[in-house]
Amino acid sequence: MNDLVLDRVSSLQDGLTQHGVDLAIIAPSAEMYHLIGRKLPLTERFNAVLLPRSGRPRIIVPRLQVPLVQDLARIFDVEAWGETDSPLARVAAYGEDIGARTIAVNGHFWSSFLLRLQNLRPQARFVDASPITAAARLHKDEREIALLTDAARRFDAIWADFFANGRLVGVTERDVVRQIGERVAAQGFDPMAWCDVGSGPNGASPLHHHSDRVIQPGDPVVIDFAATLDGYYMDTCRTPVAGEPDPSFVVIYDVVNAALEAASHAIRPGVEAQAIDRAARQVIEAAGHGPQFLHRLGHGLGIEAHEEPYIIDGNALKLAPGMVFSNEPGIYIEGRWGVRIENIMLVTNEGGRSFNDATRALTVMR
Amino acid sequence: MNDLVLDRVSSLQDGLTQHGVDLAIIAPSAEMYHLIGRKLPLTERFNAVLLPRSGRPRIIVPRLQVPLVQDLARIFDVEAWGETDSPLARVAAYGEDIGARTIAVNGHFWSSFLLRLQNLRPQARFVDASPITAAARLHKDEREIALLTDAARRFDAIWADFFANGRLVGVTERDVVRQIGERVAAQGFDPMAWCDVGSGPNGASPLHHHSDRVIQPGDPVVIDFAATLDGYYMDTCRTPVAGEPDPSFVVIYDVVNAALEAASHAIRPGVEAQAIDRAARQVIEAAGHGPQFLHRLGHGLGIEAHEEPYIIDGNALKLAPGMVFSNEPGIYIEGRWGVRIENIMLVTNEGGRSFNDATRALTVMR
Repeated sequence: MNDLVLDRVSSLQDGLTQHGVDLAIIAPSAEMYHLIGRKLPLTERFNAVLLPRSGRPRIIVPRLQVPLVQDLARIFDVEAWGETDSPLARVAAYGEDIGARTIAVNGHFWSSFLLRLQNLRPQARFVDASPITAAARLHKDEREIALLTDAARRFDAIWADFFANGRLVGVTERDVVRQIGERVAAQGFDPMAWCDVGSGPNGASPLHHHSDRVIQPGDPVVIDFAATLDGYYMDTCRTPVAGEPDPSFVVIYDVVNAALEAASHAIRPGVEAQAIDRAARQVIEAAGHGPQFLHRLGHGLGIEAHEEPYIIDGNALKLAPGMVFSNEPGIYIEGRWGVRIENIMLVTNEGGRSFNDATRALTVMR
Repeated sequence: MNDLVLDRVSSLQDGLTQHGVDLAIIAPSAEMYHLIGRKLPLTERFNAVLLPRSGRPRIIVPRLQVPLVQDLARIFDVEAWGETDSPLARVAAYGEDIGARTIAVNGHFWSSFLLRLQNLRPQARFVDASPITAAARLHKDEREIALLTDAARRFDAIWADFFANGRLVGVTERDVVRQIGERVAAQGFDPMAWCDVGSGPNGASPLHHHSDRVIQPGDPVVIDFAATLDGYYMDTCRTPVAGEPDPSFVVIYDVVNAALEAASHAIRPGVEAQAIDRAARQVIEAAGHGPQFLHRLGHGLGIEAHEEPYIIDGNALKLAPGMVFSNEPGIYIEGRWGVRIENIMLVTNEGGRSFNDATRALTVMR
């Protein structure tokens, strides 16, 4: 692990040089996890990696967190602060010491911290580190692909077991969350990141979470859940039906499935991200449901649930091997129900490969 | 709900006036939940409440989220942006339109968003909204206290069932997370926010999460978990033992329990927050373990797991009825084990009242 950290520190320092940045401040975030391989707590107790453009990096943590990072002392100076110290004043002083004029912070760095640093160092220019850090995370390496493959196998098992033994008719959406959550835990994931369950008309809002609505016979149920394994997200969606579906649903279900398939076949290195969105959208538009495909086709995922590359109109980013993103077309019929089907895709030299194998056939459940 | 929202909007607008702020931008956060009673997703898809010092507030959301907020249209102008628009440019233009010179953002507002807004409106002064927003959340009202009471009853049931039927000896820390997680789900909570399990020497780090370590006979096991119900956190910790404990552990366990008791009795309106920390610390220092009580005594909680009031040396905030915070002394013996016991306390006119009733007696488990 330490060699990987050394590589990533050095590569990020190259990025700082290229972007004219003197110091990066990386608080707990996907960027920190990518850099040092662990998630420190993101709370009011400030901790961060302080990475100068060159030279030895530093990590500043509350004293009680020292055990979480002491194995990194070969690479980082570890600076511990006591419960009643002012860590941001120390960070500002460190910036002053090394003469940092341009300082980058990770994208999700809390504004309360940034505003205090800006007050403490009014002459410094603060910038978003995201353009520098995103590049490194865009291309998954073999270890990351193996991890996602493992997570996807476990998701396949969760869906298979849920389809065979789960219950929809007469239970609440909240109970479906519980049924999925137990299976997610049994498969060794960290506590489930989310589980959205939209039954019947609730499924027509792509961002409905879940409710105490009791699922009725014939309701399609959009089930979208995600969880992390060793810090990496897996995320899928299926739309089984509680008992026999309405024929009009079956038609639309097949359109969504065909859209997913079309997008899947469009994936290959060199193609723009937006072309994949378009491939799915054309299928749905041809079926007359364009306005009811309310969202982009997909998002990258990895250490974050949503990250580059975004599969959306306007994104001319060219796909390359190692990129990972969701392929999740949907059609949402206001007042009736929704359909969404989601697989996670890997770009390979041979084209797109789905990590997920859970059936996409229309599944009727009890 | 809408009356509550109106009250809170009006109260926050008063706060803006008092602090000389022209516009508050409140992205998804505890502040937004407190203001409008729902959690919008915090993702790269920007959404926020735009609250001018006076006049009608606005809410800007991605188009697909409109169903989540349309019932608020009586109070807010709802501005929807399409998947390929630039929402931050719209926010900047709105600030320009109303002539906002001082703009406050919620404390956890992403720096990537703030830095872009600062570039779009270089003449505006940006400040942290936290001092304005924190005041409103510091005093829990009757509805909030009833909710926390309900959540605490469910936590009592989780502990009682876990102590009676759970397993420690020979299972991994990860499996304990699963055992607790199932009970948390069965009690109707949202997916568990965290469950830290530190067995034997792992318990000596107060921020250890959990691992695949197999719990050995005689190991004390620090178990700290939290979950939300209707958006409010409950959070407790107990330290049961896997089989018969070492006598040296029993002595220290009793010290921690006595420290919790001393802090509990010190709570009353008008006393400074730091005095409660001191009351617990004196008990632990008298027993010779002061340096091994590595952290502050506690933190407020509510919509956030950690919020004001912090029960820490240096915090002269005077306690008042309706304040809620954790009372969680601990002693951590490097290389051996740790003990932490945590209850959530309410300040009342009659003194401190624990929400939690789960036994604090030393519990020996299988």
